[in-house]
Amino acid sequence: MRKLLILVFCLPLMLQAQVNQDSINIKNMVNEIMTNGKAYDLLRELTKKIGGRLAGSPQQQNAAVWGKRNLEALHPDKVFLQACKTPSWQRGGKDFAEIVEIDGVAKNDKLDVLALGNSLGSKGLVEAELLAVANFDELEKRRDEVKGKIVYFNSEFNPTRIQTFAAYGESGVYRRTGPSRAAQYGAVGMMMHSLSTAPDNAPHTGAMEYDEAQPKIPAVALGPNDAKALYALAKKSKVRVQMQTYGYFLPDADENNVVAELKGTQFPEEIITIGGHLDSWDVNEGAHDDGAGIVQTMEVLRAMKALNYQPKRTIRFVLFANEENGDKGGLKYAELAKLNKEKHIFALESDAGGFTPRAIGITTSAAQFKKFQQWTALLKPYGTEIITGGGGSDIGPLTSYDKTIIMAGLIPDSQRYFDLHHARTDVFENVNKRELLLGAANIAAIIYLVDQYGVNP
Amino acid sequence: MRKLLILVFCLPLMLQAQVNQDSINIKNMVNEIMTNGKAYDLLRELTKKIGGRLAGSPQQQNAAVWGKRNLEALHPDKVFLQACKTPSWQRGGKDFAEIVEIDGVAKNDKLDVLALGNSLGSKGLVEAELLAVANFDELEKRRDEVKGKIVYFNSEFNPTRIQTFAAYGESGVYRRTGPSRAAQYGAVGMMMHSLSTAPDNAPHTGAMEYDEAQPKIPAVALGPNDAKALYALAKKSKVRVQMQTYGYFLPDADENNVVAELKGTQFPEEIITIGGHLDSWDVNEGAHDDGAGIVQTMEVLRAMKALNYQPKRTIRFVLFANEENGDKGGLKYAELAKLNKEKHIFALESDAGGFTPRAIGITTSAAQFKKFQQWTALLKPYGTEIITGGGGSDIGPLTSYDKTIIMAGLIPDSQRYFDLHHARTDVFENVNKRELLLGAANIAAIIYLVDQYGVNP
Repeated sequence: MRKLLILVFCLPLMLQAQVNQDSINIKNMVNEIMTNGKAYDLLRELTKKIGGRLAGSPQQQNAAVWGKRNLEALHPDKVFLQACKTPSWQRGGKDFAEIVEIDGVAKNDKLDVLALGNSLGSKGLVEAELLAVANFDELEKRRDEVKGKIVYFNSEFNPTRIQTFAAYGESGVYRRTGPSRAAQYGAVGMMMHSLSTAPDNAPHTGAMEYDEAQPKIPAVALGPNDAKALYALAKKSKVRVQMQTYGYFLPDADENNVVAELKGTQFPEEIITIGGHLDSWDVNEGAHDDGAGIVQTMEVLRAMKALNYQPKRTIRFVLFANEENGDKGGLKYAELAKLNKEKHIFALESDAGGFTPRAIGITTSAAQFKKFQQWTALLKPYGTEIITGGGGSDIGPLTSYDKTIIMAGLIPDSQRYFDLHHARTDVFENVNKRELLLGAANIAAIIYLVDQYGVNP
Repeated sequence: MRKLLILVFCLPLMLQAQVNQDSINIKNMVNEIMTNGKAYDLLRELTKKIGGRLAGSPQQQNAAVWGKRNLEALHPDKVFLQACKTPSWQRGGKDFAEIVEIDGVAKNDKLDVLALGNSLGSKGLVEAELLAVANFDELEKRRDEVKGKIVYFNSEFNPTRIQTFAAYGESGVYRRTGPSRAAQYGAVGMMMHSLSTAPDNAPHTGAMEYDEAQPKIPAVALGPNDAKALYALAKKSKVRVQMQTYGYFLPDADENNVVAELKGTQFPEEIITIGGHLDSWDVNEGAHDDGAGIVQTMEVLRAMKALNYQPKRTIRFVLFANEENGDKGGLKYAELAKLNKEKHIFALESDAGGFTPRAIGITTSAAQFKKFQQWTALLKPYGTEIITGGGGSDIGPLTSYDKTIIMAGLIPDSQRYFDLHHARTDVFENVNKRELLLGAANIAAIIYLVDQYGVNP
């Protein structure tokens, strides 16, 4: 009875003491990262020495070697590779488009364009009249006019979506399926407004997928300024355009996921994964997408080692080989997890840019979510809260073999991401050191809590 | 009784309906700003056509003319000027500093420096041995060594302060009082680590104030990279440095606050103020500091006019003449408010950069704060919450004649502000359009609510 009384009276105090200890431990990790963080220097190396690193490129191979060497230098319990095949799409040349005639008057007004990733070359210049439509609804209404034309989709973002990922979701369908939607009615080429929020003229590439039942027409995204001007022009004039692209595929390439591991001291069989993807598009340095996620992942390991943190559970730091055009890295990671009968409990991805973190998004059951939500007070001093909904393409495949694995994502402020996502402007200079480190700090904090307390409600 | 019953049962519904209507009205304002906002274009004009605009400069005069013309173009009920005298500090030349000797070996390693605002010229080259100290404590301990030397303060920010304004508060005292603190022990010049978070070498100027009892020694801030290198060097070597500055004052200048007003339809005597300051330092374009606050203020007026919003209370949109070195704009505004016996109820300032807004800070009584806090749910969709503590230098003087006036401030994300604050990097290119507009949208939302419901608990 006396013991029980002590328990009853002391439990809140004990819990409070634990919360205080967690608060101190988290503060130590955050301070270590904000003071001695190497993520920014590593990102400079990755972006400036290696550069753009599309799956299948020599740069992507170099990035994996660089990643392995830098993870090994942090002396985790082990570093290993997971071989996987990835697509090897080649841009093949300098994508080209031009206005050649307005209402019968010859022009040569060049347009700033990029072929969409995975799209195939035009096999020479394609010239046709432009049919500009606002959206798929208009395409359907005007399908009888499409044959022999180049279709333009005005896939501009809705600027009133405060979370820009919501606008990306809405407009992104034009990039992914627009070419085949136009081709089914006889279009000979496809153009679109870049998936961009920027008040500039940098075109944005990104993955598309052909419907195998339709002709594989060339497809480009226009710089935002050119797109707006072309759409306005096409509303009042008859416009002829030319386009040329060069895309093709080489045989699938041999790439590697790079994985570092800290072995759990109490529950080594329970695996926590954090990661980002090594590959990027070819037209930029992949600084935010996803160099930031890569170096944040490495930074969390660095900080844990610097503080001599001994995790209770096994923590994996994963540099995924391929996300942009195939998700082959994540698929391989999940395949091997299943094959090796690993017990994954939690996976977090950072692939939304190295901007100021606003939240940790968690996808889980309502009961488990309550447990996570209690940790909001511990994260709040560092600018984040726990909210529902998180995950990503690299870790997503894990749930296909075990739906109970909790998916999580770092959710940074989204205002600037689509200014530069997949555009030539996604370079090191557009990453802010403190914002990048603060993202790593918040990842470290949530990983620490999951490691300490697991995921059971 | 029946009426009472209806009231009892329907009041929550009525309140709910009102909340829904507020939610719709706010959404309309936000959509108007995010879709048709002109703040970014206005900021381009202010920064690129007018440029840096220190009080007393022709550029500052031009900025007031530009502001008046652009406010008039929005057709508020009136636009008027408030004449005020401001200081007219002149940099006078290209500030200079150099390492001339290390352990007796001659060097000429140039340092990237800017004289502190309000500091006086060195009247020729000053050359002396450097005494580098971490802080005032070390200065006090080593005061016997100071005479005849140039003192360097290592006023680096504490990187673990998540809110960078906290670090600015701690280190800022070296800029404001460092020169006279060093001069009192016989220093002949003062150098400091710029008040900067940036991993670059751009020096940051900003206001200092001499203690009239001490010699007025020249004072410069060093670029962060140079500062770190110099401090490390001075720890192990004897270093001699040279410095030259050119600062002086012209007679006070005639400037103007520019004020636009929407007259209240129900409570015209109750005045709500929003504003920013027109002046900036001379070395940059004053894009974030405080071009952002200026164009956000103008944007709120534009959106209200575009939506034909008729405020219940009088709303003032104020472009303050001078904040950086004297606060003369805000002092004049408060002086006239007192003289004219105006009834001010609420004033909000935007002067922390045009970054993604995180909160509206409110300084008020606990009872009134509860009222404001209830509005958090209406702001949350746009990324902000109501928190305690807000205000600014321009609106602050209002409280000196009426302490009940509620002070408020837009609180943007602070990670990038001190990368560029008072440095040559505070230029238009470092402002993001969506972030800037989202700040204006949140100001519009809180001003709408204060206008609708006043400030009484």
